[in-house]
Amino acid sequence: MSERLTAKGRATRDRIVSTAATLMFERGVAGTSTEDVQAAAGVSTSQIYHYFRDKKALVRAVIAHQTEVVVGHQEAVLAALDSMASLRAWADAIVALQRRLECKGGCPIGSLGAEIAEHDADARADVVAGFDRWERAIRDGLHAMRDRGELRREADPDRLAIMLLATLQGALALTQLRRDTVLLRIALTEAIDHIESFTA
Amino acid sequence: MSERLTAKGRATRDRIVSTAATLMFERGVAGTSTEDVQAAAGVSTSQIYHYFRDKKALVRAVIAHQTEVVVGHQEAVLAALDSMASLRAWADAIVALQRRLECKGGCPIGSLGAEIAEHDADARADVVAGFDRWERAIRDGLHAMRDRGELRREADPDRLAIMLLATLQGALALTQLRRDTVLLRIALTEAIDHIESFTA
Repeated sequence: MSERLTAKGRATRDRIVSTAATLMFERGVAGTSTEDVQAAAGVSTSQIYHYFRDKKALVRAVIAHQTEVVVGHQEAVLAALDSMASLRAWADAIVALQRRLECKGGCPIGSLGAEIAEHDADARADVVAGFDRWERAIRDGLHAMRDRGELRREADPDRLAIMLLATLQGALALTQLRRDTVLLRIALTEAIDHIESFTA
Repeated sequence: MSERLTAKGRATRDRIVSTAATLMFERGVAGTSTEDVQAAAGVSTSQIYHYFRDKKALVRAVIAHQTEVVVGHQEAVLAALDSMASLRAWADAIVALQRRLECKGGCPIGSLGAEIAEHDADARADVVAGFDRWERAIRDGLHAMRDRGELRREADPDRLAIMLLATLQGALALTQLRRDTVLLRIALTEAIDHIESFTA
């Protein structure tokens, strides 16, 4: 559908999606009604239903939006995760962002995933695809490090990428609950120390 | 209140809580109404409101229940997490359990936490207390390993416990989304390998 939208139509659709993303980040999917989104985005009921058949369709658009924010817009950063220094700087940036957010909301993709995992198989597949992109980006950097000889041959970038992403996800969830970034810094530092143990 | 319950009253209350826990594990907190719990537990409206003022009170009882299931009932297992072999066996048991559950539901405490984190500060504090108990149990085992000289003095049990719990939480969330235990095994193995790198 989006192919056929006019520039104005696309702007309206984008406004609806980014408004929905903000509300769902703050209040969760269940706590955000289509009416809430409509009011906050300043669009009519017929407008919102013109772009999104139902709330499920809107949730999938929010997942796509958040995947772009978390993975798409950071592609340059993630592509440069190919040295110990850049991994440490990336962890610092994540901690700083959580501090700015006062540890609220958790991971924009992970929190959506936790909420829809048992309710909506299509949305679940979208979240998985988002995590796959993220994992691939981390993995590519670790492969580059191994190819350059910065990591020893016995390092397994695929496994290390899985561990790093899992640690990040769990640490973000615990950070959100504890409202404290201390554990986030510790968990990421330990995970990156593990990667560093494979340096040549 | 529970102090003053008769044996029959306690049995009814327990049935309501365990029914609510099962429903919320399967459908989430938002997807489970007090009426759903009432019908599934076979109790009247006045009975459920006799024990729980509102849904919030019921959610807090479910968090306490799930903390007992995940941490309390496993105290013996968690207390014995004081060797590399027991850490590996614990990881195997977690993977086997997820396989039996077909990767559905995620962590019983973590999933509740993700859903209520931004909605209910009291419930959030309860979830944090549950994670604190869990983290302490892991930490105690690692301290025992260091005290016995199985881990070198430079190992920091507090930091390693945080990393292991964060990795487990993230891996369980990703396992639930991917419906696949491969990444769970990899993430836990790598996290435990990191601990093993501190063995004497």
